[in-house]
Amino acid sequence: MADLPIRFGIIGCAEIARKVSRAIQLAPNATVYAVASRNVDKAANFAKANGFPPHTKIYGSYESLLDDPDVDAVYLPLPTSLHLKWAVLTAQKKKHILTEKPVALNVAEFDQILKACEENGVQIMDGTMWVHHPRTHKMKEFLNDKERFGQLKTVNSCFTFFADPDFLKNDIRVKPDLDALGALGDAGWYGIRSILWAADYELPKTVTAIRHPVLNEAGTSGTLHLTDFIIPYQEHEASYTTSTKPGFDELVTGWSQLPSEHTVTVDLPQEVCMVREFASLVRNIKKKGTQPDKKWPTISRKTQLVLDAVKASIDKGFQPVEIVS
Amino acid sequence: MADLPIRFGIIGCAEIARKVSRAIQLAPNATVYAVASRNVDKAANFAKANGFPPHTKIYGSYESLLDDPDVDAVYLPLPTSLHLKWAVLTAQKKKHILTEKPVALNVAEFDQILKACEENGVQIMDGTMWVHHPRTHKMKEFLNDKERFGQLKTVNSCFTFFADPDFLKNDIRVKPDLDALGALGDAGWYGIRSILWAADYELPKTVTAIRHPVLNEAGTSGTLHLTDFIIPYQEHEASYTTSTKPGFDELVTGWSQLPSEHTVTVDLPQEVCMVREFASLVRNIKKKGTQPDKKWPTISRKTQLVLDAVKASIDKGFQPVEIVS
Repeated sequence: MADLPIRFGIIGCAEIARKVSRAIQLAPNATVYAVASRNVDKAANFAKANGFPPHTKIYGSYESLLDDPDVDAVYLPLPTSLHLKWAVLTAQKKKHILTEKPVALNVAEFDQILKACEENGVQIMDGTMWVHHPRTHKMKEFLNDKERFGQLKTVNSCFTFFADPDFLKNDIRVKPDLDALGALGDAGWYGIRSILWAADYELPKTVTAIRHPVLNEAGTSGTLHLTDFIIPYQEHEASYTTSTKPGFDELVTGWSQLPSEHTVTVDLPQEVCMVREFASLVRNIKKKGTQPDKKWPTISRKTQLVLDAVKASIDKGFQPVEIVS
Repeated sequence: MADLPIRFGIIGCAEIARKVSRAIQLAPNATVYAVASRNVDKAANFAKANGFPPHTKIYGSYESLLDDPDVDAVYLPLPTSLHLKWAVLTAQKKKHILTEKPVALNVAEFDQILKACEENGVQIMDGTMWVHHPRTHKMKEFLNDKERFGQLKTVNSCFTFFADPDFLKNDIRVKPDLDALGALGDAGWYGIRSILWAADYELPKTVTAIRHPVLNEAGTSGTLHLTDFIIPYQEHEASYTTSTKPGFDELVTGWSQLPSEHTVTVDLPQEVCMVREFASLVRNIKKKGTQPDKKWPTISRKTQLVLDAVKASIDKGFQPVEIVS
């Protein structure tokens, strides 16, 4: 007898559930079996809009879905604040749990959920997708390669995204009562996971947040990125990439536009441009008796000022140091 | 009468002087006129090895070069600890100064150098090359574009390089008596400059160093880089780049090898891989009565633990928070 696919029930019709329900349908060993919303019409419309099989069960409450004996596993895309209640109940109903991240508002809540899972013999997994990408396994092979990579020293993980005014006003991740961890629980979760992943999940001894996390009340539009800013890879040309209002496709399975790469062809290497600029300023002074330019020394001095302040901060036990120009 | 090129004197035969003297020769308005070392043979060999014109003046002391009335400008590649003495003397001899960075050991020294330059009407410029690259101007156009880029929020600037055992033992940048600022004055200078550059050279109000700067007594070999780790640009493939012992060409004008790009083609999107993995674990429990797997909840919990610690650190005024698992 062939194995039956694992039958998923989905509780909550969040935007992210569209992507994950498609994934459930595409996975060779899983199927969407039921969907629940607090409003039965919403659940029915969600099933229809996302092409669920016609025999998908539609429930008007999460409880009734959890009582369905044919549901094997539950996908839980609810806001974080609701995870504790619904994950524990799901476990008690002996359903396995695939839950959106962050799993809980804190470790104490997490441990209550985990205890319920262990007591009821159910599997729990959080919905961090990138760790399952085949690319991630290939990258890990590189990190594990003592010859090619060596020893892990530093991980620099950034997560930025373009949030439009609607997101910043209405998304659950900006509502403290729904997603109390906000950007830390959302983007922060990924950055933390990536550091742990690179370190073979060895926990750090201590953690220090960087000062002045800001609530981005107004978003910005673009990003600029380059990897060879000090010395360009090649002398005759140099590139950088830009993104403007980067976004994802409808189901958030890829990007609606790729960053655009810009290549600048150069006649003279950067150090020659530097000498030319310097010699040109010197010539003005020599020929015309002009005063030395103030732009470059001012820039140098500012760099030195900040350098001094960084050193002072190190010397003062990593306290903030005021810049006095 | 055509303008004569600016005649450079070079004091010190540092490795970096090879690159910059080539740049001086290539610049349309500059020429290498003289070179000085504390050892006249060293200066002569340096001139020969780097293809300086046969009529280049060779000096066995910095002072004698500075006394040459035909030297317009001096390129100063000496260790940072020697900058104050020699930059001030150069200015007093009415020679313009192109100096390696960091300009000085601190702002107090910097201001002494600047004062000498101002009193003697000479130009000073530091040797930060990348700001002179045409790419940098193009990137700035993007940053200035309110439509495409918007408002600057964050700059994330990393500078890593592969330092072989010889560098870590012998380079002047690891000798406190020669380059007392070490990596901060070298790599740090560039990172600081890049932040100032992006911010139109507006000084920050405060600066806080990140804890635990480490002296890398042992280097590592490789770097791994990707820009779309959460959601790959495209569903059917994903890329990353690796470098192993990256290095520069002989004159440090480009890279001896480019990072290599690796593309992974995928049959199933990452979220489908995730569901498949989860469903497979659930199936094992259902069919074989096995215990739920512990790997994924352990990883989730560690992520949550670190997330909690970050939040605690924010709440405690950005102090370090110990991780207690």
